[in-house]
Amino acid sequence: MSNNDFNTRLFKHLDDHQKDYIQRLSDAVSIPSVSAWPEHRHEVVRMVDWTKSLLEKLGVKVELSDVGKQKIADGKEIDLPNVILGTYGNDKAKKTVLIYGHLDVQPAQVSDGWDTEPFVLTEKNGKLFGRGSTDDKGPVLSWLNVIEAYQQLNEPFPVNVKFCLESMEEYGSEGLEDLLKSLKNTFLSDVDFVVISDSYWLGKEKPCLQYGLRGICYFFLDVECSTKDLHSGCFGGTIHEAMTDLIALMSTLVDDQGHILIDGVYDEVAPLLPEEEQLYKPITFDTKAYCSEAGVEKTIQKEKEQILMHRWRYPSLSLHGIQGAFDGVGCKTVIPRHVIGKFSIRIVPNMKIATLEKLVEKHIQNIMKERKSPNKVSVKLEHGGDYWVADPNNPQYIAARKATVAVHGIEPDLTREGGSIPITLTFQEQTGKNVLLLPIGASDDGAHSQNEKFDIINYMNGMKVMGAYFQEIAKL
Amino acid sequence: MSNNDFNTRLFKHLDDHQKDYIQRLSDAVSIPSVSAWPEHRHEVVRMVDWTKSLLEKLGVKVELSDVGKQKIADGKEIDLPNVILGTYGNDKAKKTVLIYGHLDVQPAQVSDGWDTEPFVLTEKNGKLFGRGSTDDKGPVLSWLNVIEAYQQLNEPFPVNVKFCLESMEEYGSEGLEDLLKSLKNTFLSDVDFVVISDSYWLGKEKPCLQYGLRGICYFFLDVECSTKDLHSGCFGGTIHEAMTDLIALMSTLVDDQGHILIDGVYDEVAPLLPEEEQLYKPITFDTKAYCSEAGVEKTIQKEKEQILMHRWRYPSLSLHGIQGAFDGVGCKTVIPRHVIGKFSIRIVPNMKIATLEKLVEKHIQNIMKERKSPNKVSVKLEHGGDYWVADPNNPQYIAARKATVAVHGIEPDLTREGGSIPITLTFQEQTGKNVLLLPIGASDDGAHSQNEKFDIINYMNGMKVMGAYFQEIAKL
Repeated sequence: MSNNDFNTRLFKHLDDHQKDYIQRLSDAVSIPSVSAWPEHRHEVVRMVDWTKSLLEKLGVKVELSDVGKQKIADGKEIDLPNVILGTYGNDKAKKTVLIYGHLDVQPAQVSDGWDTEPFVLTEKNGKLFGRGSTDDKGPVLSWLNVIEAYQQLNEPFPVNVKFCLESMEEYGSEGLEDLLKSLKNTFLSDVDFVVISDSYWLGKEKPCLQYGLRGICYFFLDVECSTKDLHSGCFGGTIHEAMTDLIALMSTLVDDQGHILIDGVYDEVAPLLPEEEQLYKPITFDTKAYCSEAGVEKTIQKEKEQILMHRWRYPSLSLHGIQGAFDGVGCKTVIPRHVIGKFSIRIVPNMKIATLEKLVEKHIQNIMKERKSPNKVSVKLEHGGDYWVADPNNPQYIAARKATVAVHGIEPDLTREGGSIPITLTFQEQTGKNVLLLPIGASDDGAHSQNEKFDIINYMNGMKVMGAYFQEIAKL
Repeated sequence: MSNNDFNTRLFKHLDDHQKDYIQRLSDAVSIPSVSAWPEHRHEVVRMVDWTKSLLEKLGVKVELSDVGKQKIADGKEIDLPNVILGTYGNDKAKKTVLIYGHLDVQPAQVSDGWDTEPFVLTEKNGKLFGRGSTDDKGPVLSWLNVIEAYQQLNEPFPVNVKFCLESMEEYGSEGLEDLLKSLKNTFLSDVDFVVISDSYWLGKEKPCLQYGLRGICYFFLDVECSTKDLHSGCFGGTIHEAMTDLIALMSTLVDDQGHILIDGVYDEVAPLLPEEEQLYKPITFDTKAYCSEAGVEKTIQKEKEQILMHRWRYPSLSLHGIQGAFDGVGCKTVIPRHVIGKFSIRIVPNMKIATLEKLVEKHIQNIMKERKSPNKVSVKLEHGGDYWVADPNNPQYIAARKATVAVHGIEPDLTREGGSIPITLTFQEQTGKNVLLLPIGASDDGAHSQNEKFDIINYMNGMKVMGAYFQEIAKL
């Protein structure tokens, strides 16, 4: 039987079972597995157990991996939820695909502004509203539904599958990186491809594959002027205030066009080669919709290509705020003694974190040399996460493109994300293999917002793409 | 009997009753009349009643003036504490002195870092520790102790006294300004001098009289970039971030020498005339102790006179903080949608609030004209309070100087304060008479801090100065 014939059967079977899949997602959403709420940890564990049962019912061999303890308030510790390691098939003749996903969700309460109960999956106008519907319970269940469909159709599964399903993704993936490193020569050693469905299309209509993520370097800029907070009436005008230095320093970092003013920052940025530039041309991107989604009047750049490049392949610097200054409502006439400016730089190929750290330090030192201030100033790289980029012409990407065409009738856009999914890079490093980001949700799904939703059409088409993707992988 | 003879008797009498005065202060401190804690309002009322009884025992005619309600959280309202209006003596042949003071105190808890119970007056090494000991229960009781001493010595009181004792001073003196305006042609109409003992010496040893206060203009600088907070990964590099504009604007306000960079701000500042300059020369001021009190390494200015002038007679600008930005510990990659920079300018003679407001608005507009940003920017004078300055050669000041010499054997320094006591100006305006600030506490009393204290020697000498002051006033 040709691919197309089986695809026809598979797609029909999936369509015929839409109700079951919605019910399954509803069951998953009903478990409030919020990883950020320690008092809900038992619900996260319940979600892990529920998923384990489902996997086992499908014949997946499951191991629960203990990744240790989490420190919470008051020095207390609680167990981190186990990571599910699943193995489905062990045929040396087949490719092995590792699927990563997560079972925990962002916090949600009706009082945050939800129109429905966040943990009751609610269908309205073809959309399934509920916390975790699109991030990431829907995509995780899609993979499982596809395996079930193959079984129900008595079709041999075309690849071996490994699962790595964690439940702390929304709270920093604590323990996962160490676990993956420890699995490098065992569980991960025979993986051929890694696929992750935990991101979103660029828009609402057109599917895409993502081949890059920006990294992030988060800096703390620390200024201290005195041993205690002072009253601006008593001391204003006579002492070197920490805020004056901090604000002056922060104002030298980025200009009104988003251009970073730190000497040398752009030196390591990969030049834009014609081949890469070509990738941007066919991308469907509605700049007006983007403005409307952000709630801004206009973007810095006018052209589609320029906007996308500044999201994905150029660094950016954001000033997030100040710790230690007056941040309340109303008026307070304090001279804060110790303030910490927070800013981050999104990094891109081929920027090196160590280089950037030195450039930022040098920049701050140079500015302070010009200022007559005795205040203690220091800048610290609080957290550095590397960028990630894959070759969009890698066979896995070609396979996913074919699968997309088979379902949607169009080539997916080849895009990147401006943010970070640090675990992507870890998978690439620990397997040494290609990683594919295969989003199936739309840009307006509202992953971390109120009224998170997953369109039924995307749930269904996502499964179809996944089903076709396995066949294409088998051909490589 | 000459002044000196009576002073000798008075001072001895006061010294002989030191224990009683400490006990009286202890009783007052034991009432936790914290005006900032609505749930403690009954304690504030108890303090008002306790003082009323004491005044009445001394023969002062007391009226409790209802100044209305205070709005607290959740739209609730509670009664403001009554203001005590007292009248002691009504002899047309005598001068009438109005004494202002307050009976409420700042919040205090042992857990704030007190070494003793804040509401138990505790004597250690000649110091009386307790909340309100120096601010302002000690000074208020000093006036009453002096009246009592005159009575016990069977000495006719040399002046008529009026009292205005409020109990919301530490929380904005709500209701008091309106009350004073309403009393202009009645209770306040026959007042000859106003005296306030609610401030502190410049140092720890040498008494001073204060003839000036800076005013304050508090500004909110508002920048809005979008309708919702954004993720710096998704949007960083493509939109005009509110923080970039705000930090840039805030950095144009003041330089590293404390010089205000707003065009025209210094135009209305009174020129320094030789006569005023002379006032600074004899002032005892330890610049090292000042640095140590502030906890700074060094001040902007080196010379004593320059430091004092920049505290008292030149404007200063402080950047207090930002509302709406990320202010927590750790890292958050938010692009805040709406941020409000808070800064204030201390104003001095002859700056006009209306002029300053216009200059600030124009400055912000000019900077924004140069920036290519579509963001909504506005600046608002949130609160404006005028400076106050009196003639240090006014007869009342001469009287207080003589009284100080009689007790301390030295001329008091003639000083100002860098902060504001807004009610000072109201008293001057509503009585049309000279107002004297007569501090009796030391600079290290820690009025709003942990371990607030009042030195016994200052309590005793303060009463003596007050006793002698009344006699000097009678001679005018």
